[in-house]
Amino acid sequence: MKPVKVGICGLGTVGGGTFNVLSRNAQEIARRAGREVIITQVACRRDNPNCDTSGTAVTRDVFDVARNPEVDIVVELIGGYEVAKELVLEAIKHGKHVVTANKALIAVHGNEIFAAAKAAGVTVSFEAAVAGGIPIIKTLREGLASNRIQWLAGIINGTGNFILTEMRDKGRAFEDVLKEAQALGYAEADPTFDVEGIDAAHKLTILSSIAYGIPLQFDKCFTEGITKIAREDVEYAEELGYRIKHLGISRRYANGIDLRVHPTLIPERNMIAKVDGVLNAVMTCGDAVGTTLSCGRGAGAEPTASSVIADIVDLVRSFDMPAHARVQALAFSELSDYRILPIEEVSSAYYLRMAAVDKAGVLAKIATILSEKGISIEALIQKEPAADATTAPVIMLTQQVQEKTMNEAISAIEALDVIQGKVTRIRVEQLN
Amino acid sequence: MKPVKVGICGLGTVGGGTFNVLSRNAQEIARRAGREVIITQVACRRDNPNCDTSGTAVTRDVFDVARNPEVDIVVELIGGYEVAKELVLEAIKHGKHVVTANKALIAVHGNEIFAAAKAAGVTVSFEAAVAGGIPIIKTLREGLASNRIQWLAGIINGTGNFILTEMRDKGRAFEDVLKEAQALGYAEADPTFDVEGIDAAHKLTILSSIAYGIPLQFDKCFTEGITKIAREDVEYAEELGYRIKHLGISRRYANGIDLRVHPTLIPERNMIAKVDGVLNAVMTCGDAVGTTLSCGRGAGAEPTASSVIADIVDLVRSFDMPAHARVQALAFSELSDYRILPIEEVSSAYYLRMAAVDKAGVLAKIATILSEKGISIEALIQKEPAADATTAPVIMLTQQVQEKTMNEAISAIEALDVIQGKVTRIRVEQLN
Repeated sequence: MKPVKVGICGLGTVGGGTFNVLSRNAQEIARRAGREVIITQVACRRDNPNCDTSGTAVTRDVFDVARNPEVDIVVELIGGYEVAKELVLEAIKHGKHVVTANKALIAVHGNEIFAAAKAAGVTVSFEAAVAGGIPIIKTLREGLASNRIQWLAGIINGTGNFILTEMRDKGRAFEDVLKEAQALGYAEADPTFDVEGIDAAHKLTILSSIAYGIPLQFDKCFTEGITKIAREDVEYAEELGYRIKHLGISRRYANGIDLRVHPTLIPERNMIAKVDGVLNAVMTCGDAVGTTLSCGRGAGAEPTASSVIADIVDLVRSFDMPAHARVQALAFSELSDYRILPIEEVSSAYYLRMAAVDKAGVLAKIATILSEKGISIEALIQKEPAADATTAPVIMLTQQVQEKTMNEAISAIEALDVIQGKVTRIRVEQLN
Repeated sequence: MKPVKVGICGLGTVGGGTFNVLSRNAQEIARRAGREVIITQVACRRDNPNCDTSGTAVTRDVFDVARNPEVDIVVELIGGYEVAKELVLEAIKHGKHVVTANKALIAVHGNEIFAAAKAAGVTVSFEAAVAGGIPIIKTLREGLASNRIQWLAGIINGTGNFILTEMRDKGRAFEDVLKEAQALGYAEADPTFDVEGIDAAHKLTILSSIAYGIPLQFDKCFTEGITKIAREDVEYAEELGYRIKHLGISRRYANGIDLRVHPTLIPERNMIAKVDGVLNAVMTCGDAVGTTLSCGRGAGAEPTASSVIADIVDLVRSFDMPAHARVQALAFSELSDYRILPIEEVSSAYYLRMAAVDKAGVLAKIATILSEKGISIEALIQKEPAADATTAPVIMLTQQVQEKTMNEAISAIEALDVIQGKVTRIRVEQLN
């Protein structure tokens, strides 16, 4: 069999990892793929000192790879939106299959890219775009193909999980841990994508499309970051038997699907509550299989390369397959038009924390507001005021209620003269 | 596209589940597979009251299905060795692809079956044979295709895990929990396969072949059950910061691969130590991806059906593929002849428990024997003798040492006149 020729665009962390793993494990990969996979060309702005490219053609222009008639598969690892999109479309135009690790690109421009690929009869693969080395795209598209997926939930941003883990384990403050994460190279200099949940929203958008067979709709994903999580919330959650994790969650309802990224209280006995540090994990619930969990490294050079190369091997197999038989980009041959529910229509249980003036009757006022809205209180902690404080923290867990109703209740509570400042609200999920 | 026609042999728990999920989710499955999948014939000794087979041809002879010219894929769910083997070979002879959930069949007769399938140009798929609904075969064969797998470890028998979990959580004795597991239908009337580790050894044999690309060698798998685990061992393990799990473990060394099923102490902080009840979980370590864990239901009608049908969908895709491009049964186009190490050559850390006569100098004698063998003690618990006892339990964790050396040390310790009865030995793994 003729070897398959790969062109790698971008030789940064993931590009370098892909180059090295493809070189190091060439023999095992060929024994699995049934054909040799060789790197024909590499495009990078600068050399990667960890990669020995002396035997490989190197160009500074990524478009050289997209147009190289020798290349069968273009691997896009340059990141970002604009040039990456242009590059992928150019590769498709030249009849190349594409492998990418670019979640932002797929979440935002995926519909357009998949349409172009379908028209050209090529495949765009993106296992590495979600949860790094965990083959969760494959699991959802193929491993659970017989299931009607009911919901999924994932820790899909390692930086955020590292920060929350440190806050819990060591009682540290958010800002403090963020600085360390940046020093360790986990978080970018501009950490917005990680801590504001944008990166997780990209990944959740992709996972949900595949799970339910719906178009990518990143703009409809509700996104809340972890920047407002206080150390005391982590501690109170613990006192109530919960952990706080930054989750991407989506669920199928009779009237639509929700897509949301936010900090979430999860019972500490739940497996995903125990996924700590930079690890990623995705839980899925299918009607046949029940709940499954996959856990592993969600980022880093070689874990991500592991998924990039798995895609390459799958592509090699599909070369001789008719297009109709190939796995569809978003898992389904025809997509559904389920409505994406606005967060106001989503129901959830809630953790609430507020500062109440230390007076008789305060709790009665709060309880009356909740009761009038039909919201039941599941658990309550009322602390004594600290020595120098005039307010005492009141913490409660509510039963499930629609976000819209909770918003009204919170507004009413905040309007009470015995409540100081804003009410902190964190959603609660059981995930079982 | 023409529908794909499936014949189901066996309509027990898994057969019934497969029949029902294929019927219930027919539309979603067709949207994923790109073709309709229909059940053309069912063979069963007796009807399953949970399945409405009124619209399906039913035969009492499974060989009717294997020979039915209308059937594309034969699904073998009758279990056992002899008839199942005959059935699968007959189906292959008639040019059918086969899907089976039969771990015993694959572990023991897989090499012969795969050779026959290769010669006939058909595929035998067996995702459901290991870890029920968890798509671990697909993960190893495809999702981690770029990795050199270093080791794997799994909780791959739900009954055993249920028993050990109950022993720990409720301080119950082995025999007592086994009776309950039988009453709940988790354990067979003859529980030997579960509690003696034979079922786990079947599954480990299959996983290891796929991980390292070696022929199936069930007869070389070292197997030790959980029947000798005492409640006190569970408690002492806990005191030392460990959990006892019944694991299948295999690892790649410079001079071969080990294959072993035995009770194992694992640090309680390890994710797999937290997998409780009837759940299954498999950890794998690849050189690129690092350690990953997949967890879910390892048995039951619909979780197992989930994997059976995933195999069917994969087969549907591969119909138009040339044989060389298909995923190989044991992942690799050519198998390796790594030596399977006998347990005596395997190194492990150990938990030891012994009953020592309550006299001065006992510990010195034990320590001297271990020291002469070059075995270091990592941790030690010496308890006071119970009120009515003349001996006191001594518990220790050792550093890593070859099994052969540990056997010699244990013999020497048992020969001491201050030691009563046998030394209990449980292997210890860190799995990180």
